[in-house]
Amino acid sequence: MTKKKDIVKLLLQGREVRPCKERGFGKAWANIAVCKYWGKRNEELNIPVTSSLSISLNGHGTETTVTPCSGNDEVSLAGRPIAPASQFGRGVAGFLNMFRPDANTFYRVETTNTIATAAGLASSASGFAALAMAVNDLYDWKLSGRELSIFARLGSGSACRSIFDGFVEWNAGASADGMDSFAEPLSVEWPDLRIGLVRVSTVPKTVSSRTAMKRTRRTSSLYEAWPVKVAHDMMLLKDAIGTGNFELFGQVAESNALAMHATMIGAWPPVLYWLPESVAVMRDIWRARDEGLRVYFTMDAGPNLKLLFLAEDEDAVKKYFPGVDVVTPFVKP
Amino acid sequence: MTKKKDIVKLLLQGREVRPCKERGFGKAWANIAVCKYWGKRNEELNIPVTSSLSISLNGHGTETTVTPCSGNDEVSLAGRPIAPASQFGRGVAGFLNMFRPDANTFYRVETTNTIATAAGLASSASGFAALAMAVNDLYDWKLSGRELSIFARLGSGSACRSIFDGFVEWNAGASADGMDSFAEPLSVEWPDLRIGLVRVSTVPKTVSSRTAMKRTRRTSSLYEAWPVKVAHDMMLLKDAIGTGNFELFGQVAESNALAMHATMIGAWPPVLYWLPESVAVMRDIWRARDEGLRVYFTMDAGPNLKLLFLAEDEDAVKKYFPGVDVVTPFVKP
Repeated sequence: MTKKKDIVKLLLQGREVRPCKERGFGKAWANIAVCKYWGKRNEELNIPVTSSLSISLNGHGTETTVTPCSGNDEVSLAGRPIAPASQFGRGVAGFLNMFRPDANTFYRVETTNTIATAAGLASSASGFAALAMAVNDLYDWKLSGRELSIFARLGSGSACRSIFDGFVEWNAGASADGMDSFAEPLSVEWPDLRIGLVRVSTVPKTVSSRTAMKRTRRTSSLYEAWPVKVAHDMMLLKDAIGTGNFELFGQVAESNALAMHATMIGAWPPVLYWLPESVAVMRDIWRARDEGLRVYFTMDAGPNLKLLFLAEDEDAVKKYFPGVDVVTPFVKP
Repeated sequence: MTKKKDIVKLLLQGREVRPCKERGFGKAWANIAVCKYWGKRNEELNIPVTSSLSISLNGHGTETTVTPCSGNDEVSLAGRPIAPASQFGRGVAGFLNMFRPDANTFYRVETTNTIATAAGLASSASGFAALAMAVNDLYDWKLSGRELSIFARLGSGSACRSIFDGFVEWNAGASADGMDSFAEPLSVEWPDLRIGLVRVSTVPKTVSSRTAMKRTRRTSSLYEAWPVKVAHDMMLLKDAIGTGNFELFGQVAESNALAMHATMIGAWPPVLYWLPESVAVMRDIWRARDEGLRVYFTMDAGPNLKLLFLAEDEDAVKKYFPGVDVVTPFVKP
């Protein structure tokens, strides 16, 4: 089986793992998928079953510095040390192990999330993208966007999309080593697009998305229909983005997210990320739409909802959803 | 297109539509599907895409009398007249039209539901089964169980299962006219089986199951996986019933119901019968199960849940779900 280390060797193509500066710096945005990444064809290398499509959230993400040090790795988040045994600590160590030149090389990784407080956004995508960028900077590897995307993907699948701004497509790829499974930006902007973050709960989820994906792929009879739906949705979404057809865009994004959750509901044991409050918000959205408001939603592997709407409807959306946190993905905050 | 009337002619095979007594009487139980009926291959004749499997609820159902009268049809429910334009009124009139011998023959249909108060059970299945039986009695047609099942099916699909007691299998059938799409009882009893009715809401649903089925079949990409799952689940359920394997029985029934709801969630516009409270009860059930209680659930096209458990766990189940209404499907109440 191909290991992550082997892929990094392929990516580096003889480049050296020797610091060119005191510390490397990286910065990346969180991203929200409108066509979801759900299911891996290679668990070790985070190679997805299908392509996916996301929007990077300009200004909301992660900044990371990487400094070689001695003794042991030191990871901190917003200035607070992270336990090596925690999920985050192990994730970072695993990433560093992919290129660590010898057993005596350690790193100080200092991470700060610039994600809007109370946003309820996943930080693993921007986190691993920023880390990949910081390492690339430290060693002055000058990896291309594609190469950086693959590098980040080895840390966390969706991180490969956070390497780029705006609309980003992650091509599933077909090769066994995943060297053709990288993200690329679409050359379209949609300045009026707004994303509203509705936070229902901050309680950590009891089933990780990694576990949920695996269980869904293995036990949900509905999963077989997922790749077919994604292929269709990708086409429709790119069409909607290209022509600025917001209704089509919102409809396909919402339908895609619901279908992803439906495949989990069909797994055994069932995976339901929805809380009672999630259903209440969904019903509010549908009622608002019945009343003429152009608002749709997407949801990731968690209980929170992300509204999709246009700038002109921002006031109306805020009236319906007083606690909403509005992000402008194409306009720097 | 074959009409319901044509099927009734086939069923009657020359029998006459002439009263043999003053009034006909019929009585049938509500049924709860552990493998759901979801999707019709013939909308007019209520012929399903897949087979299904249910449990009739001994003692909880409908009693109906049919009396020829003049002037116009008169339908009453628990002594109260039903408006001809209501859904129920139109349903009954449509059923009567299938065999009404001439335009001057009318019927008085008096219906009483013996379903446990606050049960939240659908009454259309037992209603049309009892009506079919009452008409068969009035005209002394002496239809066989299979024929009665087909007759009731023309009123409401799942009514074909309410013709029989205990476990009942509805064979989807393959013929265009549905003459091989009837229910049959399984020759197995499970006296210890208990069904717990948890009522979350009595508000009438905004989308009828007929509409929801149609929309799901037409727009949900996940629906294509449904018939495959049903074929598998039917096999497992019959195995579980035959061997008295309650865990397998409960697991497959719950998984089947969730998958049915998942296909609707994947429809457009999405069909979500769950209320926030439905999700809260699901989570309670999963927590109870995590704590060792052998309890599973099934759900129909509505927000209410039906618990599945064994007699020995009844006290424990009542502690977890204080409002539960317990039905003994194999023991007369």
